[in-house]
Amino acid sequence: MVRVMATGVFDLLHPGHVYFLTEAKKLGDELVVVVARDQTARRLKREPFVPEHLRREMVEALKPVDRAILGSTTDIYETVVRERPDIIALGYNQLWNEREVEGECARRGVPAKVVRLGAYPHNDIATRKLVERIQQRAPSPSPEAR
Amino acid sequence: MVRVMATGVFDLLHPGHVYFLTEAKKLGDELVVVVARDQTARRLKREPFVPEHLRREMVEALKPVDRAILGSTTDIYETVVRERPDIIALGYNQLWNEREVEGECARRGVPAKVVRLGAYPHNDIATRKLVERIQQRAPSPSPEAR
Repeated sequence: MVRVMATGVFDLLHPGHVYFLTEAKKLGDELVVVVARDQTARRLKREPFVPEHLRREMVEALKPVDRAILGSTTDIYETVVRERPDIIALGYNQLWNEREVEGECARRGVPAKVVRLGAYPHNDIATRKLVERIQQRAPSPSPEAR
Repeated sequence: MVRVMATGVFDLLHPGHVYFLTEAKKLGDELVVVVARDQTARRLKREPFVPEHLRREMVEALKPVDRAILGSTTDIYETVVRERPDIIALGYNQLWNEREVEGECARRGVPAKVVRLGAYPHNDIATRKLVERIQQRAPSPSPEAR
């Protein structure tokens, strides 16, 4: 049984996420997705719009996902040591370095292989673009501006 | 084989949608979801943020969904006649009247039963609330306002 792990914030789900998780699942038999905690997302990216327990629930509702779990708030390798994945799938735009992640996993006793996945070929709607689209349609704050 | 049909816009997926579709699937063996066309959503509700082909793709990626199809732009019963569901599941806040829908299905030769599902018990984030949250965090339009 080959266990694959993928991680992310998954704030507003879009087809790029589904593509990433579908490709990750193809690398093995079981896909465990680590959903970043609110405080981790806040520190590394921005405050999520959807709270962590609901982001986890939505990711677990996706077909390629066997289990979705919340990550650690302090040490991203804590979950790796607990879940012992055979493969860690990185999205095309996730910033970690493959060799560094493999090295740190090995140092902690988990000989996982790190695989970089390709970009979604039709990425016409990523989270940032979706957020911009929603914000552009925000009601004007003052009546004069309408 | 009991075929269940559910419909909706499914613009920004949230746990209430997953709950609705999970409950709908429990009513039979196969769940076909009709995703409203952009022009139908525009007419009945508001312009969707996510275009119809991506909304369809996201709905089909959800575990309870066997098939997601785009609806008709002119006649909502066109899809009912083509798919011939045994059961039509209505969400707790969908405005159709059960008896009227059953009557119209019967007139068109589809003896479907219409079942009204209950509300998501923990609906702490619906689409409207999520949109408001995103819009409230929109960058200020003028530099003085920052």
